[in-house]
Amino acid sequence: MIKAGIIGSTGYAGQELVRLLLQHKEAEIVWYGSRSYIDKRYSDVFGNMTKLVDQKCLDDNMEELAEEADIVFTATPQGLCASLVNEDILSKTKIIDLSADFRIKDVGVYEKWYGLEHKSPQFIGEAVYGLCEINREKIKKARLIANPGCYPTCSTLAIYPLAKEGLIDMSTVIIDAKSGTSGAGRGAKVNNLYCEVNESIKAYGVASHRHTPEIEEQLSYASGEQVVLNFTPHLVPMNRGILITAYANLKKEISYEEAKAIYDQYYENEYFIRVLEKDVCPETRWVEGSNFVDLNIKIDPRTKRVIMMGAMDNLVKGAAGQAVQNMNLLFGLEEQEGLRLVPMFP
Amino acid sequence: MIKAGIIGSTGYAGQELVRLLLQHKEAEIVWYGSRSYIDKRYSDVFGNMTKLVDQKCLDDNMEELAEEADIVFTATPQGLCASLVNEDILSKTKIIDLSADFRIKDVGVYEKWYGLEHKSPQFIGEAVYGLCEINREKIKKARLIANPGCYPTCSTLAIYPLAKEGLIDMSTVIIDAKSGTSGAGRGAKVNNLYCEVNESIKAYGVASHRHTPEIEEQLSYASGEQVVLNFTPHLVPMNRGILITAYANLKKEISYEEAKAIYDQYYENEYFIRVLEKDVCPETRWVEGSNFVDLNIKIDPRTKRVIMMGAMDNLVKGAAGQAVQNMNLLFGLEEQEGLRLVPMFP
Amino acid sequence: MIKAGIIGSTGYAGQELVRLLLQHKEAEIVWYGSRSYIDKRYSDVFGNMTKLVDQKCLDDNMEELAEEADIVFTATPQGLCASLVNEDILSKTKIIDLSADFRIKDVGVYEKWYGLEHKSPQFIGEAVYGLCEINREKIKKARLIANPGCYPTCSTLAIYPLAKEGLIDMSTVIIDAKSGTSGAGRGAKVNNLYCEVNESIKAYGVASHRHTPEIEEQLSYASGEQVVLNFTPHLVPMNRGILITAYANLKKEISYEEAKAIYDQYYENEYFIRVLEKDVCPETRWVEGSNFVDLNIKIDPRTKRVIMMGAMDNLVKGAAGQAVQNMNLLFGLEEQEGLRLVPMFP
Amino acid sequence: MIKAGIIGSTGYAGQELVRLLLQHKEAEIVWYGSRSYIDKRYSDVFGNMTKLVDQKCLDDNMEELAEEADIVFTATPQGLCASLVNEDILSKTKIIDLSADFRIKDVGVYEKWYGLEHKSPQFIGEAVYGLCEINREKIKKARLIANPGCYPTCSTLAIYPLAKEGLIDMSTVIIDAKSGTSGAGRGAKVNNLYCEVNESIKAYGVASHRHTPEIEEQLSYASGEQVVLNFTPHLVPMNRGILITAYANLKKEISYEEAKAIYDQYYENEYFIRVLEKDVCPETRWVEGSNFVDLNIKIDPRTKRVIMMGAMDNLVKGAAGQAVQNMNLLFGLEEQEGLRLVPMFP
Repeated sequence: MIKAGIIGSTGYAGQELVRLLLQHKEAEIVWYGSRSYIDKRYSDVFGNMTKLVDQKCLDDNMEELAEEADIVFTATPQGLCASLVNEDILSKTKIIDLSADFRIKDVGVYEKWYGLEHKSPQFIGEAVYGLCEINREKIKKARLIANPGCYPTCSTLAIYPLAKEGLIDMSTVIIDAKSGTSGAGRGAKVNNLYCEVNESIKAYGVASHRHTPEIEEQLSYASGEQVVLNFTPHLVPMNRGILITAYANLKKEISYEEAKAIYDQYYENEYFIRVLEKDVCPETRWVEGSNFVDLNIKIDPRTKRVIMMGAMDNLVKGAAGQAVQNMNLLFGLEEQEGLRLVPMFP
Repeated sequence: MIKAGIIGSTGYAGQELVRLLLQHKEAEIVWYGSRSYIDKRYSDVFGNMTKLVDQKCLDDNMEELAEEADIVFTATPQGLCASLVNEDILSKTKIIDLSADFRIKDVGVYEKWYGLEHKSPQFIGEAVYGLCEINREKIKKARLIANPGCYPTCSTLAIYPLAKEGLIDMSTVIIDAKSGTSGAGRGAKVNNLYCEVNESIKAYGVASHRHTPEIEEQLSYASGEQVVLNFTPHLVPMNRGILITAYANLKKEISYEEAKAIYDQYYENEYFIRVLEKDVCPETRWVEGSNFVDLNIKIDPRTKRVIMMGAMDNLVKGAAGQAVQNMNLLFGLEEQEGLRLVPMFP
Repeated sequence: MIKAGIIGSTGYAGQELVRLLLQHKEAEIVWYGSRSYIDKRYSDVFGNMTKLVDQKCLDDNMEELAEEADIVFTATPQGLCASLVNEDILSKTKIIDLSADFRIKDVGVYEKWYGLEHKSPQFIGEAVYGLCEINREKIKKARLIANPGCYPTCSTLAIYPLAKEGLIDMSTVIIDAKSGTSGAGRGAKVNNLYCEVNESIKAYGVASHRHTPEIEEQLSYASGEQVVLNFTPHLVPMNRGILITAYANLKKEISYEEAKAIYDQYYENEYFIRVLEKDVCPETRWVEGSNFVDLNIKIDPRTKRVIMMGAMDNLVKGAAGQAVQNMNLLFGLEEQEGLRLVPMFP
Repeated sequence: MIKAGIIGSTGYAGQELVRLLLQHKEAEIVWYGSRSYIDKRYSDVFGNMTKLVDQKCLDDNMEELAEEADIVFTATPQGLCASLVNEDILSKTKIIDLSADFRIKDVGVYEKWYGLEHKSPQFIGEAVYGLCEINREKIKKARLIANPGCYPTCSTLAIYPLAKEGLIDMSTVIIDAKSGTSGAGRGAKVNNLYCEVNESIKAYGVASHRHTPEIEEQLSYASGEQVVLNFTPHLVPMNRGILITAYANLKKEISYEEAKAIYDQYYENEYFIRVLEKDVCPETRWVEGSNFVDLNIKIDPRTKRVIMMGAMDNLVKGAAGQAVQNMNLLFGLEEQEGLRLVPMFP
């Protein structure tokens, strides 16, 4: 039985991790970390956990946690994990960091986009970017996993095959993304109140969102070019879900069937990736609560562009689910363990 | 492995049954019945089932089904199950009927409230009302289960202990209920369009809703009196969830602690019933996707009334989840098998 | 041109008052009070007001306001208006208080339910309860109006005719109410975040909500009895709207037509009250954005009860709209001025 | 008093037209056309109109209508208006067509994208495209107005200044659009049910949506080039609102301030267009219920692209409001008459 500790268990991603781990056969949670709710019963914060979780919330104590846990998940604001990790900790436990601290290899890029000084740049090199479908083998041997951001996960998986095959002009990539409101976190802010979000849609972080360099880095690896792109996220009045609509110019004429064959080649053995049938657009309702990513593409012969679409649950494949998938890889378990969740509809 | 057939698998309750049975270790679905989508791939109707269900929808053929299936679920409009069941069928398979056909013992009451002639009244007597927490032993031995209605499940469980103990004046019971929109079904009706339901709330079926006699019958058994009550359902702009707010005059003064002790006595060994802490009101968000029923009570010393509250997921404990719970009882499985679902939030 | 000042203009009710007064021919706003946003442009707080309002938010200065304004609206937390009002102020300007400070005649009841010491009980006597349809003549002559609470407005108007006519047993009145989330205010609280409210419904303030004594007082006047009742509000995932479902035992047999005739007699000349056709239940979507209250009743011969239903927009007739209606009465304007708003659907 | 007739008054756009015309001082509705609800009281179809509209729905009789009405609005499916209009009708009344029949000058393009034969191509030439801010003078003299589509209105207004000034590479224009569900109409379709739309987002009509050629035509006029672009609409779980996020490569380096100055130059005298402050993104909540279009731009120096954003209410400026604006121009009224609606929030 894997002993798991969670720092930041009372945010939305942390709570989703609890939900998934409670249904995981090989793991048990030994530490419900939450600086905001120390000594409060976890199920008093999240009523869904009544009778399922008896524990109280604990302070963040990485030293003690490293002793008690085989794996530590940090579902915390940027900067915290980097400030807690050190060689001693990593020699005792494995870490899956759901924040951005170890996702970007160039510490200068990280510090510029996040406006933070990185407290442990010496571990950036060894950290593995936990996009399981792409870095599976590296993940298995890692001590420190940088769990990908929600938007980067969906964007990268949607664009990866065509970028890797060199079929799209990387200088023309535009990603228009839409996210449910759980992505905005559980902080008490006027802008996230029900009446402010409901019945509205807006773009935010236009040309400045922090997930931009993360996506650019991953697509640069895929294409072998230095990618600079536009990424525009939007806030949607729904709880969960991310939808990606990405555009790129095709370098050469290609049919839908040819493009589809490429996606199938990359993903047909991937349990969590579902390449849809022709003309079926991904919809977030079909993946809710699950670790699936639904993908499809559309070729537009009029503009010689391809539209690449992806849908997933931002809290599952975009956060906690992928973290569990990474844990499974780290510990040699079956990759789907605890994640064979049928999407819940409606 | 139990072979399960579903008639009406493309309604919301039927689809939820599919979701639950796919995650059930001892059952497999052998028949996806759907008169509306014959020969269409099930996953083309419900995109969440992509890569999870390969089968096509089949017509309703009870004879064939009875041969192939150990258990048949009928998630169909009122009247259909009654028209299909007969001694031959029941000798070959067990039936869990999610419609109202076998819930009400007095066929005259059924025919009056439902405006239908009952096609097989001879089986009403043997049918067992599948409210597991109350009729557990009878269910285990049944061939034909009348799976309770969503409102009656939540209402009965919320009121049962005080009714049974004779502590409330049954002639004063008023049930004000609220349901998410999946309860209205998947039929293409203007009244259920997004823009008609969203941003609104209304009562419907006032003093005439068909679940009224079902609730009255169950509470009559509990109290030993002929109960006549008010039941008013409301349509709420959300997908899932039922909330019950029930009122009754107390026959004698009683403290919260005394009342709470009674609920605990009835329910403390019930896995699926969670009696909440003092002053914590049930909320549908805390049970979503699960088979739990959250209950609590409030004593109002000013009016000498008790307010009894219950929340559950109308598609799970109110339909498909309870059906699976009944199946587990029928086949001697652990009652929680396939139903240890952690509620999904948000 | 009436000069209007608003204290608390950046709450939801205050902002709605701005919306209504901007469309009012005989009034102009001279003071946008907001302690939280002093010196910030009003349209930077509420983007809907871009190009429509140039002014900045001002601190609360009742003395100065009384000099500049013919009417002061206080859309503020309980206790503030009572702490600001005095004889000098009232000699210079009229006040419409949207808080509860002057609604309840018995200062002891106010202090008990609100947990506050009343700072100017000497004005409670002269304050007029601004339920226009009932206290119209008194309002016209007042200096200080206690604008009714949202729930009390809808509840009182729904029950008033039968209470006044002595047709219902007042000891049996139960009010089950449902409100959109704007009623919870614009404070930054976790409980009011989008993801906490969306896809859920709950009761709150059970047997203890502060609007209870206000409703009881008004229905006591109507019935000539000391009324004690149950009032249970619920939070609904929608922006606006209040729905009331009230229950009472009939003192004598009465047909729907007789009851309807009584409602018509009380309300047929009331522009803002719409008594619906037989069997049509009020729905909040049909009144959104308007000052209308839609009412109907259902007689249940089985239980000998009447179900009284009402729907209105909590921010209009339940707050700002009724405040403008009161202003119109105070200044001898046509009562509908600025309030002939067609409900917006969908 | 202008006598207005509406064909198709029971769709969402038709009903919104009724709402606006009821609040218009110079117009009265003389014909509530609705083939689906002939002889039914209009207020029985739309409860918001109770006590405001007494009339019944009438069949579509263009001859009679042309006699009785000074202006006929056709808020009908594509093809109907083209089949009803003729010289005799146009000699007696003016027509504002809310369908697409007369929007596209090239009948071949219309017939290809709409899959319909055009029944009166002889009137396409004389029809004026009713985008008021751009074609104001032509509109004033027209008999037949093609009221623009919702997406084309917002897209064209957002892109027009930079297209007209030749600052963007028109071959790189990509429009990613998001719409509330009222845009999908009031037809009883499973896909538009509450539970199907709620808690989900999807693209639809990718590379094939019928508004594409309309936008291309308008931007071709603006830029003087033959424009071919990508337009991708998405369905958002909200009632009203359209948001446009458009991307284009800049032909030369330009600062935000320079770009902003161009928008101001084009729109500063336009009452209904609000160019927002730097870094303020348009949000649909701020325009709901009004005829405003909120615009802003963001320059991305990294990619040398401009992101052009627009928000409006699809039923007002995107349909009924613009139709009334056109009517005002046709009849020499003040352009804002009946349209000085303050956006309703929340």
